[in-house]
Amino acid sequence: MAKTVDDFSLQNLLVDMDEDGITTVTLNRADKRNALNAETIEELIEVFSGLPRMGARAVVLRAEGTHFCAGLDLVEHHKEDRRPEEFMHVCLRWHEAFNKMEYGGVPVIAALKGAVVGGGLELASSAHIRVADQSTYFALPEGQRGLFTGGGATIRVADLVGKARMIDMMLTGRVYKQDEAISVGLAQYLVEDSEAKAYEIARAAATNPPLSNFAICSAISHMQNMSALDAAYAESVVAGIVNTQPASRGRLEAFANKTAARVRPE
Amino acid sequence: MAKTVDDFSLQNLLVDMDEDGITTVTLNRADKRNALNAETIEELIEVFSGLPRMGARAVVLRAEGTHFCAGLDLVEHHKEDRRPEEFMHVCLRWHEAFNKMEYGGVPVIAALKGAVVGGGLELASSAHIRVADQSTYFALPEGQRGLFTGGGATIRVADLVGKARMIDMMLTGRVYKQDEAISVGLAQYLVEDSEAKAYEIARAAATNPPLSNFAICSAISHMQNMSALDAAYAESVVAGIVNTQPASRGRLEAFANKTAARVRPE
Amino acid sequence: MAKTVDDFSLQNLLVDMDEDGITTVTLNRADKRNALNAETIEELIEVFSGLPRMGARAVVLRAEGTHFCAGLDLVEHHKEDRRPEEFMHVCLRWHEAFNKMEYGGVPVIAALKGAVVGGGLELASSAHIRVADQSTYFALPEGQRGLFTGGGATIRVADLVGKARMIDMMLTGRVYKQDEAISVGLAQYLVEDSEAKAYEIARAAATNPPLSNFAICSAISHMQNMSALDAAYAESVVAGIVNTQPASRGRLEAFANKTAARVRPE
Amino acid sequence: MAKTVDDFSLQNLLVDMDEDGITTVTLNRADKRNALNAETIEELIEVFSGLPRMGARAVVLRAEGTHFCAGLDLVEHHKEDRRPEEFMHVCLRWHEAFNKMEYGGVPVIAALKGAVVGGGLELASSAHIRVADQSTYFALPEGQRGLFTGGGATIRVADLVGKARMIDMMLTGRVYKQDEAISVGLAQYLVEDSEAKAYEIARAAATNPPLSNFAICSAISHMQNMSALDAAYAESVVAGIVNTQPASRGRLEAFANKTAARVRPE
Amino acid sequence: MAKTVDDFSLQNLLVDMDEDGITTVTLNRADKRNALNAETIEELIEVFSGLPRMGARAVVLRAEGTHFCAGLDLVEHHKEDRRPEEFMHVCLRWHEAFNKMEYGGVPVIAALKGAVVGGGLELASSAHIRVADQSTYFALPEGQRGLFTGGGATIRVADLVGKARMIDMMLTGRVYKQDEAISVGLAQYLVEDSEAKAYEIARAAATNPPLSNFAICSAISHMQNMSALDAAYAESVVAGIVNTQPASRGRLEAFANKTAARVRPE
Amino acid sequence: MAKTVDDFSLQNLLVDMDEDGITTVTLNRADKRNALNAETIEELIEVFSGLPRMGARAVVLRAEGTHFCAGLDLVEHHKEDRRPEEFMHVCLRWHEAFNKMEYGGVPVIAALKGAVVGGGLELASSAHIRVADQSTYFALPEGQRGLFTGGGATIRVADLVGKARMIDMMLTGRVYKQDEAISVGLAQYLVEDSEAKAYEIARAAATNPPLSNFAICSAISHMQNMSALDAAYAESVVAGIVNTQPASRGRLEAFANKTAARVRPE
Repeated sequence: MAKTVDDFSLQNLLVDMDEDGITTVTLNRADKRNALNAETIEELIEVFSGLPRMGARAVVLRAEGTHFCAGLDLVEHHKEDRRPEEFMHVCLRWHEAFNKMEYGGVPVIAALKGAVVGGGLELASSAHIRVADQSTYFALPEGQRGLFTGGGATIRVADLVGKARMIDMMLTGRVYKQDEAISVGLAQYLVEDSEAKAYEIARAAATNPPLSNFAICSAISHMQNMSALDAAYAESVVAGIVNTQPASRGRLEAFANKTAARVRPE
Repeated sequence: MAKTVDDFSLQNLLVDMDEDGITTVTLNRADKRNALNAETIEELIEVFSGLPRMGARAVVLRAEGTHFCAGLDLVEHHKEDRRPEEFMHVCLRWHEAFNKMEYGGVPVIAALKGAVVGGGLELASSAHIRVADQSTYFALPEGQRGLFTGGGATIRVADLVGKARMIDMMLTGRVYKQDEAISVGLAQYLVEDSEAKAYEIARAAATNPPLSNFAICSAISHMQNMSALDAAYAESVVAGIVNTQPASRGRLEAFANKTAARVRPE
Repeated sequence: MAKTVDDFSLQNLLVDMDEDGITTVTLNRADKRNALNAETIEELIEVFSGLPRMGARAVVLRAEGTHFCAGLDLVEHHKEDRRPEEFMHVCLRWHEAFNKMEYGGVPVIAALKGAVVGGGLELASSAHIRVADQSTYFALPEGQRGLFTGGGATIRVADLVGKARMIDMMLTGRVYKQDEAISVGLAQYLVEDSEAKAYEIARAAATNPPLSNFAICSAISHMQNMSALDAAYAESVVAGIVNTQPASRGRLEAFANKTAARVRPE
Repeated sequence: MAKTVDDFSLQNLLVDMDEDGITTVTLNRADKRNALNAETIEELIEVFSGLPRMGARAVVLRAEGTHFCAGLDLVEHHKEDRRPEEFMHVCLRWHEAFNKMEYGGVPVIAALKGAVVGGGLELASSAHIRVADQSTYFALPEGQRGLFTGGGATIRVADLVGKARMIDMMLTGRVYKQDEAISVGLAQYLVEDSEAKAYEIARAAATNPPLSNFAICSAISHMQNMSALDAAYAESVVAGIVNTQPASRGRLEAFANKTAARVRPE
Repeated sequence: MAKTVDDFSLQNLLVDMDEDGITTVTLNRADKRNALNAETIEELIEVFSGLPRMGARAVVLRAEGTHFCAGLDLVEHHKEDRRPEEFMHVCLRWHEAFNKMEYGGVPVIAALKGAVVGGGLELASSAHIRVADQSTYFALPEGQRGLFTGGGATIRVADLVGKARMIDMMLTGRVYKQDEAISVGLAQYLVEDSEAKAYEIARAAATNPPLSNFAICSAISHMQNMSALDAAYAESVVAGIVNTQPASRGRLEAFANKTAARVRPE
Repeated sequence: MAKTVDDFSLQNLLVDMDEDGITTVTLNRADKRNALNAETIEELIEVFSGLPRMGARAVVLRAEGTHFCAGLDLVEHHKEDRRPEEFMHVCLRWHEAFNKMEYGGVPVIAALKGAVVGGGLELASSAHIRVADQSTYFALPEGQRGLFTGGGATIRVADLVGKARMIDMMLTGRVYKQDEAISVGLAQYLVEDSEAKAYEIARAAATNPPLSNFAICSAISHMQNMSALDAAYAESVVAGIVNTQPASRGRLEAFANKTAARVRPE
């Protein structure tokens, strides 16, 4: 298994980690609008299985070219002429990749641009924070292509925009962009330069203790799956560990001494 | 059991299906503001149990008169002076009707106008897409009438606007309309002519393969009920079937040949 | 156990109930920005365990000073230097308090101002309705303090604003206020005078029959935890009881006689 | 829709109701070992949708011939050469039938004999009580046939015998019978004459008030799907209705007067 | 609030704690076969809310007289002639009491004898361990009394014996005792003297570190309510706290030094 | 990543696959009673992540020495003196390993002997079938060691024996073996030679089509996590794929021609 990001064996992704643990994962199939073929998914699994134990403090997920990601590689899919059970297994690999992102404990910030459609939106929605620019547009054209989503849109996109809007996107191919995309929840930020903002966020998030970020980027997602009354119990236990970590003692000391920054509205 | 829409035995609803499978279901108690009496609910069960196996490709749910639906027929309810177990059974029939709509696999588009209140909002929220016009207003006056919702508002309206806004509507009778209604999620479209738009959407949705629409209009709802990690598994299997259907081969071929329409922001 | 609000033994809260059952619970540690120490949590448990059986018809939760609540008393937390299991037990008490609020069956209206941050937002999100004024700002600075939320933010704040926005707040310390806070769902009302509005809402809600309010303020929350198809069953049974209560007969009579107020858009 | 059992239109089932509401549903394809073809499933839907509103107080489900039911009609399945989506829809109809049995509110007692295998075990496990005789044997040969269960075995058989034993049955074709079948939970009774015992149980159950039986035969199943803490709330509401029904007043009176039979061990 | 067991204000229960924290809670209405009236339930809430913070290490729940508990006080219930919402509230108090037992974190061992029926079985099933003697018999006669269970039998008894056997008990009034009761899971121990055995177990359990027992007697129950994949996460966090507690260091040291008792089959 | 079993890099496990895909995984730390140290867990992850895509048809999990597995390596745990967050991460790796086993789609048969205690029982319960011999004994001594289970016992052991028996095992250290172990569900088979039987079962299971086994060894577990009504939907889709696979056509043909073996009681 890879021990550092240099040990990854990758054809479709580029991975780089700086000395602060700020890690860049780049989709590198610009000529295919970064469509996700089977091989890319395997690489995403490798990368996101490995990063949490390689010192990554935050990940920026970005793309080469003008589009973030056009989704499932339909040309490959057409050529493979898969049987149902074969495509089911393809989807299970997608979920392996995307669940490693969402539940892996390391903040993932997606820097979006151009097309974020179909499986591309599924990939983006597995990140913890999505930063859009003015060129970014979101859609789920699966219905019109005669398909269904197989990489978590039924869960993660429905979670972002609500089931009703997600079904509308699927039935009609509706496209969201800019302010409206922010308003319905597809991204948390709309800026001029989505990469610059993504790095700014990643660096800010990386200043939190890793254990706090681990809890934020794994526990919260698990708790959404539980009854509120059971989630409350689980949250108590997570807080028991996180809120007594040695790494936060200095911060609490600073707070008690009134030397810590206070929360203030801008 | 009815074999075509002409075999339905209906007093309170009108049903019509055109040659493309675009089906119109009309609430036909305009003098009662289309209030839902027990008989209408039985007819909704009959209709929405039957339509999925009668070739319906998409349903427009519309109403006679100036109001979509004023909800539970309170005059009937008052006259019947029901015992708790009797009203519980009334509600179970409402759910039978509304679950057949939501999970039936055929897109249902509600063309709204005027009052969409109480049970009328419950009916509308069982549709997959809601189109409002400028006259449309939404409310849950149950609290003030000394009632509670019994047709799924606790689930579907909470899902649309969030639990907190739904509780506010129930406690205070708050009315939403126009832009604010859209913004909080009560409808996906606000237009001048809600019926015209509903038919436009229905016709567009009907061009998707029926199996894709079946998945969109049944699987997504089931998946919201599951833990995300189990839903991912279920989604993989659904996509296994849908994404290898013969009906989508031509569409994929067109995509591979670049003759298919591409997703673009307007 | 306390029989009336005068029997409560309180140091950090003030409780008052008027003859209509409109109850005021005041956070009374203004010099600490109403930070929640262990003792205050015990008092919240005492109060919200007792109120439902003391005739409370609606509760306004307000604060002394310029800030609603700054959250966990970090000075106390720092001084106590708790072990994980000790802080886990602290959190379980927080949940005892906040679950009594949310599931207690009596409408709780929070009148917000200034800081509603960290545990203060957890407290506010346990109310059924949140009224903000122009000074109100919301944040979850836990990540930056080296902490995690332990009073239900992972559930209730995620429910209000969506998991994605909540994670963003946690990772980056993002602050929401005014229109944007309303838009993302942190409060249902933005007004000049949040207390005045909170009392207005409380008095309006208190005119509903107590049994309707009980269902609204307990059943809806439980139903969010269930699969939709099971929730439908549960809702039918709740409606069976509430919608046949003697207290609503007069209201239904008025409706049948057309002497009841009709729902109208403003 | 059928109004009495005589209005049912049936080829594969026989239905008879006596004056006490004790209803017999007979599987009538003895020459096919009562294998379940598509038509029989449609008839089961018709019958179990209708019976709860026709005065049925308890149902005995029995079979002609020496075997209760051999499961899915594999000859039909082989001949039809179904596509995945076609078989998916077959399964959805099976679930419609079996869910109407389990959640319909009327006690169903299955009188078993001979083969109760594959879909036959799925049918039997949808009954509330299973009575086996010495000839009865249970198995899930789907794995060996190259199939998977599609009528609820993954839920109901797993519920009866535990997931581990159910997986063993599926992987190995293991057959259970007689004492061991009772011990692992496949049936609640092992007797000489399973039909006679089934009628005895049905008549006993039919002496309970219908509302009590409705709750027992619908609410309990729903509650297994909920978190225990939410189920407790739902149970309280169901008990609120059932335990205050007028039909039980005489019974309580008898108890208070000590004229009611007391519970005693035999 | 009570600070020691002597501060409890009790009419129907007796509570005693020895110097080791072994606590006895006695049902003291032998002349009513320890039937549970409303007042007793309030006392159970008081006791089981208080004990976990009073140093209780293990609780033996026993009864005066020849019967453990005959369940809901039907004479009181008959006399009160409650409305549905009133009885719903009664049930909610039962759940408050029983949930405090099950989730309270202190092992509760029920010493059974004679009748453990209806609500008496619900009480017993809220204990963590049930010890039966030869006189003990279990039944749910609610169906025959025209009632439904309202204290958790639908959850806890179904959990012990499986849904199918529980429904059989409800429909038919079936009585279980002795070996068969053990075999189906109604109790974990069948002995000559159930009280002696209960104390033996309580003392043994009390030798575990309190934090281990807290996890065993609260976390396991919560985890049954979660999807297995989310429960795994929660379990990891609980084990994180429990398995690094200072109180277990000596035990681990003993194990490492091979001075600890090894697990061996008898 | 390893491509064949020979590519695995293992110190604590032995893996061998025969030409039929029958794979043996051997625990090879007999001198430590096969206690699970951190390294062994990493190897289990590697092996069970890889096997499903290496042609494994069935796995026999066996152990060197006289004991199957004594659980968590307590000597290592004691030496490491882990902080809570460190041990939480250890547990998350255990779950990664065990979930890969349970949900991996390949039948795993555990051949048990001697001690199957603590984490050893957690490992065994992640297999699909457990075969015990006369020497096998089961226990969860965690409570007495001052620990809690962190490898899934709260889920999988509770699933096998019921929550109540599992809590008893944890509180008291109770040991199960032989007939009683089978009766409560800890294993499905009790034989003289557990390895011989495990291979017999593995070879039998391997004759099922791999797709059927995949469904049996992944879907059933997911479905236990869902509401029954949603699980029914998911099951329909899985059966849609499995029951129309080409690999089963010959088997169905044989059945239709009556040349297939029939299910018969022995």
